[in-house]
Amino acid sequence: MSRKNETKEAIIEAALYLFQIKGYHATSVRDISNRAGVNSATISYYFKNKNGLLEYCFTSFLEEYLQLIENHLETIQSCDPAACLKSLVKEILLFQRKNYLAAKFVYSEISFDSSLNREILSTYWTKEKFYLQALMETGIQKGVFRSMSLPIFILQLKGLMSAPLLHAQYSMEVLYQFPQEEYFTMKYLEELYEFIDRNIIDAPKEFPLVLAGEEVVL
Amino acid sequence: MSRKNETKEAIIEAALYLFQIKGYHATSVRDISNRAGVNSATISYYFKNKNGLLEYCFTSFLEEYLQLIENHLETIQSCDPAACLKSLVKEILLFQRKNYLAAKFVYSEISFDSSLNREILSTYWTKEKFYLQALMETGIQKGVFRSMSLPIFILQLKGLMSAPLLHAQYSMEVLYQFPQEEYFTMKYLEELYEFIDRNIIDAPKEFPLVLAGEEVVL
Repeated sequence: MSRKNETKEAIIEAALYLFQIKGYHATSVRDISNRAGVNSATISYYFKNKNGLLEYCFTSFLEEYLQLIENHLETIQSCDPAACLKSLVKEILLFQRKNYLAAKFVYSEISFDSSLNREILSTYWTKEKFYLQALMETGIQKGVFRSMSLPIFILQLKGLMSAPLLHAQYSMEVLYQFPQEEYFTMKYLEELYEFIDRNIIDAPKEFPLVLAGEEVVL
Repeated sequence: MSRKNETKEAIIEAALYLFQIKGYHATSVRDISNRAGVNSATISYYFKNKNGLLEYCFTSFLEEYLQLIENHLETIQSCDPAACLKSLVKEILLFQRKNYLAAKFVYSEISFDSSLNREILSTYWTKEKFYLQALMETGIQKGVFRSMSLPIFILQLKGLMSAPLLHAQYSMEVLYQFPQEEYFTMKYLEELYEFIDRNIIDAPKEFPLVLAGEEVVL
C-alpha cells in the first residue's frame, strides 16, 4: 500500500472507531486527526470535511460490497441456485467480518431517514435488490426454490445477515457470541445454510410426510 | 389519559420524531419543546434533561416489552411450545408496530457501545434472553423443537423480528414494503410462522421423505 493510501486508511479507521464509540455527531475532525496521528488539514485534503469522510466510508464499503455480489452472480444462469445463494451468503458474511467496523456503521446509519440514505438507497441498495431478486427468480423458475414473497424473503435474509452487526452488543454481552471471531462466523454461516435448506428449497412441502404405521398412498 | 400524561406523551412523541429525523445529538431540548408545544421548563420538570428523556424512552419501551413477554410465558409449562412461540412472536410484532417510532429508536440505538446500553443490556435484555431460552428449552425437552444452538437461534429470531424496523428505509424505498401498515405486519408474521414451522419444529428431519415411485420402507 502506498504512503498516501496508508494515511487515508488510518483516517478512515480512526473515524469509524470514533463514530462507533462516540457517535457521528459527537465526533469532531480534531478527534479523528488526533487518533489517526495526522494533521486536520490532511483530512480536509482527502475528504473535504466530516461529511465527506462519512460519504467516503459509505460509498467505498458499498461499492466493494456490490462488486462482490456482481462478480458472484455473473454465473447465475449456469449454477445451481441453492449452491449459488449459499456461497453468496458466505462471501457476504466474510466480507462483513473483514470490514467489521465499516459494516456495523453503514448498517446502523441506514436505519435513519436522511438524504444521504435516500441517495444510497436509490443506487446501491436498488442494485443489490436487483441481483438478489434475479437469483431468487432463477431458483423459482428452475423449480429448486419454493414460490414465496420475494420482498419479504429479501428483508428476512438481510435481517439475518445483518443481525450479528446490528445486535453486536447484545450478541456479545447477553449471548456471549462474538461476531468478530472466525468461529462465530462459521457457526452462524452453518445456521444460515440450514435456514436456506429448510426455508427456500422446495422439497419439504412438495412431498407429504409419511408417518410410521399409516397407510401409504402414493 | 390525564392532562399530565398527555403532556408527557406529547413530549416523548416529539422527541422520538426528532431523534428519528435529525438524530439524537443534533436535536435540542428547544426543538423538542417547540414541536411538542410546551415550555422547555416542562421538559426539565418531567425528564430533567435530554439524556433523562432518552433514558425514559428506552426504559418505558423496554419495561412494557418485557412485561408482554413475562405475561405471555407464564403459561409456558402448560402450552404447546410451537404455538406459544408463534403467539409470542405475533405479540412482539404487534407491539413493535403500535410503538413504531420508539421501537425503531431503541433498536437502532442499541447497536452502539454506550454506557446506557451496557446498563440496559445487563438488565432488560438479559431477562428477555432468559425467557426466550426457557421457552426454547421447554420445546426441545418436549421433543417438539429440534436441538440447535440457542444463542444463535435467539440472535436470528431477533434479527428477523427487528428487520422491518432496522431496515425500515430500505424496506420502504427499495422493496416497497411499509412496516407501519397492518397488511405488511400480517404478511411478515405469516413468513415468521413459516420460519418457525420449517426451522424449529422437529418433524421435517424426523421422518424420511418418501418420493413417488420409490419403494417405501417403514
